[in-house]
Amino acid sequence: MESIKTIEWAAGRVRIIDQTRLPHQRVYLDIRTPQEMVAAIQAMRIRGAPALGVAGAYGLALGGLGIRAGSRAQFLAQLRPIAEELCAARPTAVNLSWGVQRLLAKAEASEYPQVEKLQQLLVAEAQRVQQEDLEANRRLGAHGARLIPQEATVLTHCNAGALATAGYGTALGVLRAAKEAGKALKVYVDETRPLLQGARLTAWELVEEGIPATLIVDSMAGHFLRTGGIQCVVVGADRIAANGDVANKIGTYSVAVLAKENGVPFYVAAPTSTIDLSLPSGDQIPIEERSPSEVTHIGEVPLAPVGVSVANPAFDVTPARYVSAIITEGGIVYPPYEEGLRRICGR
Amino acid sequence: MESIKTIEWAAGRVRIIDQTRLPHQRVYLDIRTPQEMVAAIQAMRIRGAPALGVAGAYGLALGGLGIRAGSRAQFLAQLRPIAEELCAARPTAVNLSWGVQRLLAKAEASEYPQVEKLQQLLVAEAQRVQQEDLEANRRLGAHGARLIPQEATVLTHCNAGALATAGYGTALGVLRAAKEAGKALKVYVDETRPLLQGARLTAWELVEEGIPATLIVDSMAGHFLRTGGIQCVVVGADRIAANGDVANKIGTYSVAVLAKENGVPFYVAAPTSTIDLSLPSGDQIPIEERSPSEVTHIGEVPLAPVGVSVANPAFDVTPARYVSAIITEGGIVYPPYEEGLRRICGR
Repeated sequence: MESIKTIEWAAGRVRIIDQTRLPHQRVYLDIRTPQEMVAAIQAMRIRGAPALGVAGAYGLALGGLGIRAGSRAQFLAQLRPIAEELCAARPTAVNLSWGVQRLLAKAEASEYPQVEKLQQLLVAEAQRVQQEDLEANRRLGAHGARLIPQEATVLTHCNAGALATAGYGTALGVLRAAKEAGKALKVYVDETRPLLQGARLTAWELVEEGIPATLIVDSMAGHFLRTGGIQCVVVGADRIAANGDVANKIGTYSVAVLAKENGVPFYVAAPTSTIDLSLPSGDQIPIEERSPSEVTHIGEVPLAPVGVSVANPAFDVTPARYVSAIITEGGIVYPPYEEGLRRICGR
Repeated sequence: MESIKTIEWAAGRVRIIDQTRLPHQRVYLDIRTPQEMVAAIQAMRIRGAPALGVAGAYGLALGGLGIRAGSRAQFLAQLRPIAEELCAARPTAVNLSWGVQRLLAKAEASEYPQVEKLQQLLVAEAQRVQQEDLEANRRLGAHGARLIPQEATVLTHCNAGALATAGYGTALGVLRAAKEAGKALKVYVDETRPLLQGARLTAWELVEEGIPATLIVDSMAGHFLRTGGIQCVVVGADRIAANGDVANKIGTYSVAVLAKENGVPFYVAAPTSTIDLSLPSGDQIPIEERSPSEVTHIGEVPLAPVGVSVANPAFDVTPARYVSAIITEGGIVYPPYEEGLRRICGR
């Protein structure tokens, strides 16, 4: 996996691996403008909450480089609508706007009068967001590995791996750290319909990593939580409300309920940039509805009769009562979450 | 739907609609031998527990027609291994062996010395199995419709429709009867990976029937049970043990747990031929493991990295404590099931 870069800065452009083509094709795309970044995010060529934080930051850095302005004030006036456009690309993962706002705030707080300096500042800050995410994942992984038994069968949903982050991963970072600590792992991987991030990305990362992985369809998770000797579930998150409610890929709520019903701990692994203390509960998290064609087709293959209605919420909300612990780069937070999440965020 | 026949006797052959080609193509296949029937069953060209009962019966009738024997004893001696072969085609749905054994017992109990008479007897009995299943579904539907509110949003998993039976359906028979009784229905349809019987068959039946259907991926069921105003779940069954444990399509257990967690009644609709009083509990029900390629591919399209392990149990077991009621052609059975199931089976 070390040879695969999810996203990197490359001399005035942002290079991403096109995740819609994985695992069968390794295609890199050069992103040159914020608009191209928005399109790549919406098409899920880059996805995963922490990776979206980095993508948002780089998107704004690209935006800054494209601005022709005679003054600091003009520069910032043109930068702000670009920030808004980037934040609106996808609504659920809070990291996207977190990354964008961090850069915007950095520019606004700086005292550079020269546009060129502001442009350099944005690029440097975006690179810092990327570097910090990688480091956060490694710390998060080390904390989370303590929760994994010496011999463990683990279930995960969607992809919270190197591809969902600047590298190493959140949920998969926990598993990588557990493996590095000498623990023997087996992992059940939910395929994660409709876009199959589990089958295409997580299964691939685990195969590359040499961690034994068994791919299952999503509806088998309950069966194996009941019968498969699973010791814990580890998933990522797209947004965590102040009370510990977790928005994550559609299907996460089901896995959490089934884990609790079978006495299996359910862990959420996410950097603190995923925590949104401005929302009291998960009820306020916006849930993205995506195209029906993601459900009715696989590539060009139609799966359903013409004319059927489709619902396609990309995320669901898992109430905090199903969450055994939240693993962050600052440590592990246990219930009650209101208090623990504020502490870990230094608020 | 009346124009589509799942299975019918056609002058010495059995004609089935190839369910692997639906909904996009309507291809009928002529089955001429028990071996062709076994192959069609294993490839799931015909599937659904009650339909497998009919298919098993017709398979044995075809076997009888193909026997060249000089005596009743020779005929029965050749018939028995054909029955075994048919019963072994798929292990989980008890209706398959129920249909086969019913015909075998009929032949053995008859006193006809002439082979030709025995052959005719088998064909007539197979036709009776088919006719009785259709009638049972209509009675089952009428009983079950009483459980459906006047305006109802219902969730179903897999296909327990006309295509899974001799006609009308079990779970979908309940919905058809509710509609005929003037009730206003909306149905969430789980796509039912890996083979997509929900997307391909149930969604199609409902569209044809004019019942508003919303197709979802399986992992959305929990989300909509929590947020979608669903009043009840209705599913079919492949085998029901004496204690009320239910084997049905993989994913049924998950739906049942999520329904209970959200206070939504979970109903199982199945003819009494699905009840297996010889098994004390669901732990003894054999669960078929099918090919990994069903999970890793859709048609020719690969979904997963080469070399990943796959689990593919075709069914799971829902413990009786999650089942609100079992709807049969003889009436509705409520817990405790030991007693109610014996009564409904006349034992």
